[in-house]
Amino acid sequence: MAAAGLRPEAGSPQWAPAERDPAAAARPADGEDAPVRPLCKPRGICSRAYFLVLMVLVHLYLGNVLALLLFVHYSDGGGGPAAPRRAPGPPPAPAPAPLARLEGIKVGHEQKVQLVADRDHLVRTLSLKPLLFEVPGFLREEECRLIVHLAQMKGLQPSQLLPTEEFEEAMGAMQLHPLDLFRLLDRNHDGRLQLGEVLAQTRLGSGRWMTPETVQEMYAAMKADPDGDGVLSLQEFAAMDLRDVRTFMKRHRAESGELVRNSHHTWLYQGEGAHHVMRSIRQRVLRLTRLPAEVVELSEPMQVVRYGEGGHYHAHVDSGPVYPETICSHTKLVTNESVPFETSCRYVTVLFYLNNVTGGGETVFPVADNRTYDETSLVQDGVDLRDTRRHCDKGNLRVTPQQGTAVFWYNYLPDGQGWVGDVDEYSLHGGCVVTRGTKWIANNWINVDPSRARQALYQQEMARLAREGAADAQPEWALDRAYGDARVEL
Amino acid sequence: MAAAGLRPEAGSPQWAPAERDPAAAARPADGEDAPVRPLCKPRGICSRAYFLVLMVLVHLYLGNVLALLLFVHYSDGGGGPAAPRRAPGPPPAPAPAPLARLEGIKVGHEQKVQLVADRDHLVRTLSLKPLLFEVPGFLREEECRLIVHLAQMKGLQPSQLLPTEEFEEAMGAMQLHPLDLFRLLDRNHDGRLQLGEVLAQTRLGSGRWMTPETVQEMYAAMKADPDGDGVLSLQEFAAMDLRDVRTFMKRHRAESGELVRNSHHTWLYQGEGAHHVMRSIRQRVLRLTRLPAEVVELSEPMQVVRYGEGGHYHAHVDSGPVYPETICSHTKLVTNESVPFETSCRYVTVLFYLNNVTGGGETVFPVADNRTYDETSLVQDGVDLRDTRRHCDKGNLRVTPQQGTAVFWYNYLPDGQGWVGDVDEYSLHGGCVVTRGTKWIANNWINVDPSRARQALYQQEMARLAREGAADAQPEWALDRAYGDARVEL
Repeated sequence: MAAAGLRPEAGSPQWAPAERDPAAAARPADGEDAPVRPLCKPRGICSRAYFLVLMVLVHLYLGNVLALLLFVHYSDGGGGPAAPRRAPGPPPAPAPAPLARLEGIKVGHEQKVQLVADRDHLVRTLSLKPLLFEVPGFLREEECRLIVHLAQMKGLQPSQLLPTEEFEEAMGAMQLHPLDLFRLLDRNHDGRLQLGEVLAQTRLGSGRWMTPETVQEMYAAMKADPDGDGVLSLQEFAAMDLRDVRTFMKRHRAESGELVRNSHHTWLYQGEGAHHVMRSIRQRVLRLTRLPAEVVELSEPMQVVRYGEGGHYHAHVDSGPVYPETICSHTKLVTNESVPFETSCRYVTVLFYLNNVTGGGETVFPVADNRTYDETSLVQDGVDLRDTRRHCDKGNLRVTPQQGTAVFWYNYLPDGQGWVGDVDEYSLHGGCVVTRGTKWIANNWINVDPSRARQALYQQEMARLAREGAADAQPEWALDRAYGDARVEL
Repeated sequence: MAAAGLRPEAGSPQWAPAERDPAAAARPADGEDAPVRPLCKPRGICSRAYFLVLMVLVHLYLGNVLALLLFVHYSDGGGGPAAPRRAPGPPPAPAPAPLARLEGIKVGHEQKVQLVADRDHLVRTLSLKPLLFEVPGFLREEECRLIVHLAQMKGLQPSQLLPTEEFEEAMGAMQLHPLDLFRLLDRNHDGRLQLGEVLAQTRLGSGRWMTPETVQEMYAAMKADPDGDGVLSLQEFAAMDLRDVRTFMKRHRAESGELVRNSHHTWLYQGEGAHHVMRSIRQRVLRLTRLPAEVVELSEPMQVVRYGEGGHYHAHVDSGPVYPETICSHTKLVTNESVPFETSCRYVTVLFYLNNVTGGGETVFPVADNRTYDETSLVQDGVDLRDTRRHCDKGNLRVTPQQGTAVFWYNYLPDGQGWVGDVDEYSLHGGCVVTRGTKWIANNWINVDPSRARQALYQQEMARLAREGAADAQPEWALDRAYGDARVEL
């Protein structure tokens, strides 16, 4: 079990496991955070030398383990969310102006915005936690068709593949002390591992989506839970041979429907010189979010996603937690720091529905506007609210795809000083299974570094490069290589 | 039943029934809206001539009926909350700057503020709906004692008295058609009156707090509900002789514990020349809320409230709904309009705990941060969440009195343009029964007119009067007569 991939928290980013084609594995996917990537050890569980050996195949996996360790570290008092959460600051640059944030007012509130010259759009508040809006008619029908066409011409690739055997072999070489691992998993500190606690760490599944049934099956195969109550004592846990977990996983290759995510996607450039429709959509996003042009222009390209019949994406959040050790993928070029975590820092998600889906395919926000957020209560009485194949009907809010409609939400809370604060756990969302037909969507993410100084430095640097006409005057992804090989360079 | 006092909605302001001393009856009370006061009829149910006859004794009561009529009018499509909600505009004055609004970020978030020279205070977010904060140590212990002392020297009066017999006689002369009344009460339009629908209209009780038991007792005494299921059909309702309701009420005089509110209160001046502690508290409130000085200085004086053992205040909201027909008590002097509703337009409530209570006396917010607000679900399965004598334990959020702590919240949502929008229904709150000892609190309300233009005009006019050194250079209440006889002048 130790070697089977850990995740920091329910609702934290899923990860794309490594695969034979490292370029493909390295691309972040719809609603996925960039894989968490360790550069140094936070707690001495693994040594730096050891790291280097396993690096290429293992970094994604280790990221999961380290992310969990860090999560527990910051949750259990080792600083806590109230502790300073910023990475060591870069040299000062002029502080960017406060980031605009639309007011939700209340669910159902409508406000008019002018996004294009010839008409107004209505922006309707769908929830306050997360701060989520709907904009009918954001795209025209022919624009939706064009985007699908451009994506098909470019070609789509699977959004998630299972780990290779080499990867799992490499994992096998890594061992955490069972007591450490037990402590990490036992979130309620009752000295026992409930099914919900195991399921909450979806990364344990190495990309497979774990259900109460699959975990119980595994326990049975390993004779790990003799009394069959689905709860492991420390003794039962320690008695497990973790190599058996790998053996079990190997024998039970997951079908695509058993993955965290089952879709194909590609990326469409929106920067200068792009198709005029792609440019126009970026301008509309700029007007809609009221964020600075330099922020929007330096953000990721558009991701286009196709879900076939049976396609789904279990619930997740689009951006990673903010620890002092975190840096953002988009600003990392301007930092000389060695920090263990990289995440994609997606302040806002704008999701476009490109077609009407014949059956299913809703976007679900399982805990939207819940009074409280409690990770462990996501999995109760055998019902996992994040499971978009089984339990979409139990989620608080479901948006039915409507061609041309955009929904958008903030993945981060404000920090109270006009900048980005903590990740909003209520932004947990997923794609319900498509029961009939095909579902096409696109995503625009707006990337903002939670470190205001680093975002400033990044913008300054990119502006300088642009003035100097350097090839690097556009962000990495604008050159269409970021999602190629960038992520395997450690 | 027609003649027994209606209220616009659960959580809307309670009212102080008329009494022999009209001056006392006219004072608004802790967390109460100024009594709704009709100046003209909205729907032709009562004529203006009739009005004048009953005016002095009946205006509060009629206010309730009219408020309910208006509420139904605006709820059932006669414009709706999305319709223009402002009273006809006064002549233009320079628009006041946007109103500051603290950011809640998330429950448990803490921000530091400097309210006094010698220390910082922590402002902790208690809920987002309503936007509610707690400030420990806002008042020093000796300041709390001083306020209690000043209030005792001034003398406290009962916050609520029962209607007199004359009042109820006058009520008897008023008749609504039973079909109209039935339609008003039948909120779910199922052609039957559930207990919850009757209880939701707490004004029907004429200041008595209605429980499922008292309503059922009344039905039994009047033989109104032969099948005893607590549900009235239209036939059963129409068959009731409404005079019997009055007879029943007369025979069952309510004890103080059976009132909507059971406390004593008085008002302490905080304007220029007031005790330096009272001035200083106003300055702290100004810094805390970041609202313009002229808004805070022109707001109500401090209300000090004593709850004896057994004291309580059932849940209510502090300000009235915003209809086109609404004017605010504080700005009405600058309007020449004849509009049927007056409410106290309390944008912010700051509540100070002046002592530690031996038993009970918490402030409860029954629906704080609920996912949805549904008036009828406040009363379900015989449990009325607004009942602070019985069901405080079931409320979402309870604040235990702690000497010197202030809590404050916004009674209105923002309008999205930097001004006051709709009343926030989630601000519903009450005082739990004091089971042991005495509870002392104080309230500061900050009054803002939802009509930005009228607030501007009011501020302009008050500034002009101040420059001219007129006696009216201070708001009505600053002269300590607003809460004397102002409210009986029609």
